[in-house]
Amino acid sequence: MTLKEIYKNLNLDFVNQENIVIEAINNLKDATSKELSFLENPKYIEQLKNTKALAVLISSEHQNHIPAGTTAIVVDKPYLSFAILTKHFQKPLLLTNENEAIIGTDSVILKNTYLGQNTKIGNNTKILSGVSIGDNVSIGDNCIIHPNVVIYNDTQIGDNVTIHSNTVIGCDGFGYAHTNEGEHIKIYHNGNVRIEDEVEIGSNVSVDRAVFSSTIIKKGTKIDNLVQIAHNVEIGEYSIIVSQTGISGSTILGRNVVMGGQSGTSGHLSIAAFTTIAARTGVTKTLKKAAVYAGFPAVEHNIWLKTKATISKLTKQNNKGKK
Amino acid sequence: MTLKEIYKNLNLDFVNQENIVIEAINNLKDATSKELSFLENPKYIEQLKNTKALAVLISSEHQNHIPAGTTAIVVDKPYLSFAILTKHFQKPLLLTNENEAIIGTDSVILKNTYLGQNTKIGNNTKILSGVSIGDNVSIGDNCIIHPNVVIYNDTQIGDNVTIHSNTVIGCDGFGYAHTNEGEHIKIYHNGNVRIEDEVEIGSNVSVDRAVFSSTIIKKGTKIDNLVQIAHNVEIGEYSIIVSQTGISGSTILGRNVVMGGQSGTSGHLSIAAFTTIAARTGVTKTLKKAAVYAGFPAVEHNIWLKTKATISKLTKQNNKGKK
Amino acid sequence: MTLKEIYKNLNLDFVNQENIVIEAINNLKDATSKELSFLENPKYIEQLKNTKALAVLISSEHQNHIPAGTTAIVVDKPYLSFAILTKHFQKPLLLTNENEAIIGTDSVILKNTYLGQNTKIGNNTKILSGVSIGDNVSIGDNCIIHPNVVIYNDTQIGDNVTIHSNTVIGCDGFGYAHTNEGEHIKIYHNGNVRIEDEVEIGSNVSVDRAVFSSTIIKKGTKIDNLVQIAHNVEIGEYSIIVSQTGISGSTILGRNVVMGGQSGTSGHLSIAAFTTIAARTGVTKTLKKAAVYAGFPAVEHNIWLKTKATISKLTKQNNKGKK
Repeated sequence: MTLKEIYKNLNLDFVNQENIVIEAINNLKDATSKELSFLENPKYIEQLKNTKALAVLISSEHQNHIPAGTTAIVVDKPYLSFAILTKHFQKPLLLTNENEAIIGTDSVILKNTYLGQNTKIGNNTKILSGVSIGDNVSIGDNCIIHPNVVIYNDTQIGDNVTIHSNTVIGCDGFGYAHTNEGEHIKIYHNGNVRIEDEVEIGSNVSVDRAVFSSTIIKKGTKIDNLVQIAHNVEIGEYSIIVSQTGISGSTILGRNVVMGGQSGTSGHLSIAAFTTIAARTGVTKTLKKAAVYAGFPAVEHNIWLKTKATISKLTKQNNKGKK
Repeated sequence: MTLKEIYKNLNLDFVNQENIVIEAINNLKDATSKELSFLENPKYIEQLKNTKALAVLISSEHQNHIPAGTTAIVVDKPYLSFAILTKHFQKPLLLTNENEAIIGTDSVILKNTYLGQNTKIGNNTKILSGVSIGDNVSIGDNCIIHPNVVIYNDTQIGDNVTIHSNTVIGCDGFGYAHTNEGEHIKIYHNGNVRIEDEVEIGSNVSVDRAVFSSTIIKKGTKIDNLVQIAHNVEIGEYSIIVSQTGISGSTILGRNVVMGGQSGTSGHLSIAAFTTIAARTGVTKTLKKAAVYAGFPAVEHNIWLKTKATISKLTKQNNKGKK
Repeated sequence: MTLKEIYKNLNLDFVNQENIVIEAINNLKDATSKELSFLENPKYIEQLKNTKALAVLISSEHQNHIPAGTTAIVVDKPYLSFAILTKHFQKPLLLTNENEAIIGTDSVILKNTYLGQNTKIGNNTKILSGVSIGDNVSIGDNCIIHPNVVIYNDTQIGDNVTIHSNTVIGCDGFGYAHTNEGEHIKIYHNGNVRIEDEVEIGSNVSVDRAVFSSTIIKKGTKIDNLVQIAHNVEIGEYSIIVSQTGISGSTILGRNVVMGGQSGTSGHLSIAAFTTIAARTGVTKTLKKAAVYAGFPAVEHNIWLKTKATISKLTKQNNKGKK
């Protein structure tokens, strides 16, 4: 898409006469000199100053931070304008006239399966009945993909990975920008999911694809049933995520993190390596120190125990003499 | 089914000799003069007084409120008798000898899909691999139904709707009446699900069909992964329901309601338009005022913050001097 | 596998020269004289004393409790050694050259389904589109298996059972032993799932197979959508498990237990028959008394109400005079 078309799609007057081509949208940090980016949240102004983006959607108040060589596209709501444009950069849902899937030796593909184009399955991997694998997917050696798993386009899966039934890998992240009228404009997600070696994922799990780059599940991590992993999450090596846990967008877990059942995190947090989060805990802030946490909002486990003991004591005092 | 057969199915003596046909079961409010209804909860006595139902299952103590023209079928447990009868009014699981599905222009139906009878798919809609669509389903234009989605009989879906993989639309609501011996008698659900235009639903979501009439998701609403939407729920326009949230039966959300991740509501509530429910909140009462709510049971967010601060302060006081 | 090979797989010196064959791994209580077992947790020493196991993986400190006739295989980490060995005893993922599935009279098997070997479907049972049924599965009469359900190998299902779409029965339990380096060694699960008559299970539910023996859902129990049932759980007759609830491994529910929505339990608990667990409750201890419980950790409901009232009162006191 040309810069000219971008102005047109945003209903802006086009001042620059050049027909410059924008190849993709990306974040400020990773954008190349052929890509478009945006600044909504002022906390990314440092990234803006160092961006290589060809053009940046920006509000007039932050326009002065645009670096030399980058075009400022001044808009009222940069995030909303970004969302509107993502639609025009979305990837095709279904490839056609590309290469048939390549399947390694000793691999088994049961019936009722679907394999997209440009997809590659390694050796000694088993794809069971009803599995749907999209385009541009890569699956390594010695994997087991249980019945009715769905793997969306562009997903990359390493070796010795097991995924249990009805799990969905790579569906769109839940991202929308909001208009003044309260409508929600979809942010099309062009990133993917990357699952490293030795990962096992339970049944009925949802792992969303990234907006840009990748949602990543690192080597040796084990995920239980009915877990939600949002877009751009990173889970470190050898972590354990117990059933019905939810990890919100862009949160990063270090290695060997344990999250107990029905726990959850807010988005954009960091959880220190070797942290344990007790069952049913709700983490609302970054946890820099490896420890055991509990409660909602999460506190260190011993504080949670003291809190519960205090409440119990005060309740007894308050009800003394009452039936 | 005739009135006579209904008496027989409930092991009641039949006094009326007429062979009156009952066409369906319905709630008091919507029942026509050819339908059967029931009164269990006295709070619906006003609806009883105005019902057009041909007959009503009712306990002897409320019998005097039956309007003229409606037959009282006096039973010990009206809700249980109703449940027993729903089995006899259930719709067929699979239609046979009806019309093949009609598919609009430019629509794509991938392999391994199932399309029921009397079903209609609009134009430029994509039904991906492994999708199962029941009988009497209608899907509009420009929809994307991702792999392995299941859409039960009678579901109605508007235009520009996207449903992600392994989501289930229209499965039976979780409704049972209980016998004195502790057994559970299934209430067969003859209602459906209606999804309006521009709705997007994530992966591994469950949306139950209504007992009567419809579970409704209104225009422009966006639903994240692993969400539970029970029977007869109504979600207003442009609402946002974040991952792992559960909305219990018959609860009605106004427009632009936001429910944060892992939140939930009890059944039979109303949530005011433009209300925000924080992540992990449990709503147990109707919320008439648009505000931000948090906690369990849900209170206004600033009260929740004060509560958390108070608990923290009292815990510190209680532990002063202790190690 | 011979005892000699077991020593080899654990990198132990083999002292016994006999080529004794071990047929399976089992728990101390159920192991036969041809099976291997392990002792990790000292609370099972009584079971050890009475075990019939041919050999037991055990640490040196508990070695003296080994009964006569049982060989002690002394290892540093018995549970880890057990996990390592389970891989060698895993059952085949896919049977070949066995018997085709047998299907009873008046049963319907829709297209896109997969039926494993040695599997038996009863009479008048409906297997809808996209269902995958593994090897050695038995399904009774008058069942409805809705589209895209997955039933893993060895599952046993009674009569009049309904399972809604995208539910997974019999996937591997979430069990791993941990190395000193923080890696997780999978415990291969050779048990199964047993579902008794008149059970109904909602959509997107996960029911894990047992390590040994069976995960059991007893007669007449009804399970809502998106519920997690871990390995070796037993749910008593006529229980009600509402949506998004999670039951952790080896927990046993008596009959007519009700668990409200989004509730959960820790593992290895017993819940008394006729207990009610309110919505969003987290049960962390065995409940011996049938009552209504609420809160996290769960307490009796009236205590929870008093606690909430006390917190509310103290918050008001603490904020008196503040805006």
